[in-house]
Amino acid sequence: MGKKGILVVVSGFAGSGKGTLMRELTSRYENYALSVSATTRKPRPGEEEGKEYFFKTTEEFQAMIAADEFIEYAQYVNNYYGTPRAYVEEQLKAGKDVILEIEVQGALQIKEKFQTDTLLLFVTPPNANILKKRLVGRGTEPMAVVGQRLLRASEEAEFIPDYDYLIINDNLEECVKTMNEIIQNEHVRAFRNSEFIKNIREGLLNLSKGE
Amino acid sequence: MGKKGILVVVSGFAGSGKGTLMRELTSRYENYALSVSATTRKPRPGEEEGKEYFFKTTEEFQAMIAADEFIEYAQYVNNYYGTPRAYVEEQLKAGKDVILEIEVQGALQIKEKFQTDTLLLFVTPPNANILKKRLVGRGTEPMAVVGQRLLRASEEAEFIPDYDYLIINDNLEECVKTMNEIIQNEHVRAFRNSEFIKNIREGLLNLSKGE
Repeated sequence: MGKKGILVVVSGFAGSGKGTLMRELTSRYENYALSVSATTRKPRPGEEEGKEYFFKTTEEFQAMIAADEFIEYAQYVNNYYGTPRAYVEEQLKAGKDVILEIEVQGALQIKEKFQTDTLLLFVTPPNANILKKRLVGRGTEPMAVVGQRLLRASEEAEFIPDYDYLIINDNLEECVKTMNEIIQNEHVRAFRNSEFIKNIREGLLNLSKGE
Repeated sequence: MGKKGILVVVSGFAGSGKGTLMRELTSRYENYALSVSATTRKPRPGEEEGKEYFFKTTEEFQAMIAADEFIEYAQYVNNYYGTPRAYVEEQLKAGKDVILEIEVQGALQIKEKFQTDTLLLFVTPPNANILKKRLVGRGTEPMAVVGQRLLRASEEAEFIPDYDYLIINDNLEECVKTMNEIIQNEHVRAFRNSEFIKNIREGLLNLSKGE
């Protein structure tokens, strides 16, 4: 039954809590592999090579683009960000569901390339006010920056209809559970099980003839 | 969030255990309404009007067809079977997920009419041998009839790719749980929540302007 892993793309507004959600999901359940992005931005204090990101020089990154080593990449604020292909393909073959936490731009590239073979999830708070409260509550940013983040979120929201499911993050426990269910049940989609359907059909036909 | 009910079509091979599955599902969880079909076949001993079927004369049934009172109907062995529209629409409006247990022919009619607005589930045993064992195990039918049922099942299997999900009935408990999850998670599909997406997008935009 759908032994190959599923490529799961997760996006969400800054402040939607998707980071915590991903950590909980991948630590509670065994079937997931979290993809690590490559970037040309400098490591922040505490960030480790291969954990938060693979840190690359611009030349290295561009060489990887030329060698088609990314399944998606994009540029933000003069830095490149991308998903290295090799790890993702290895893990999918091994039957792991691979989680990519990426922005809408990259998510849509992946959807275009892999079509129905991906599952796109968008993490959102139950409403706009809660997102504002979370951003203000962080207390680390001036109100002007909060305003910019809200504007950016409203722009990202335009692309939610391209995603498969909304993950409404009002309760962490519930949300992790729902996310896991959605991903695991994707394995029993009819189109992912053509081999099973072929086998049962032939088996029934043979048995009906008394074979 | 996706307050309108979902039209869930369930089909499956004779002997797949879908009858038991539906009874368990609808008795354990509150959000379901089981649609009752109309038929022109005579009631069998123990069958009650409005429980197993609404029993109609051929004339009554044809009058209902003429008045467009069915969302699907079909003829088998000289009898009509159909799903009365009024009950289904009432329940969907009231937010109930309506379950129709119907054959592939009717299921495909519904898919064509309602497109993405339905969810099509196909109940199958884990393999062909198990279905044969269940049919033989009933002990009520001669082997020739078992052979016919298996042949019919192999023909029905051709249409499984038109369904959304396989429900593999190897363990009743697991199976009822999975079926409920699949249906409930369908409510958070992005395309079923355009109102929510519109609201959050506008909310974020207004908040970003300091409104």
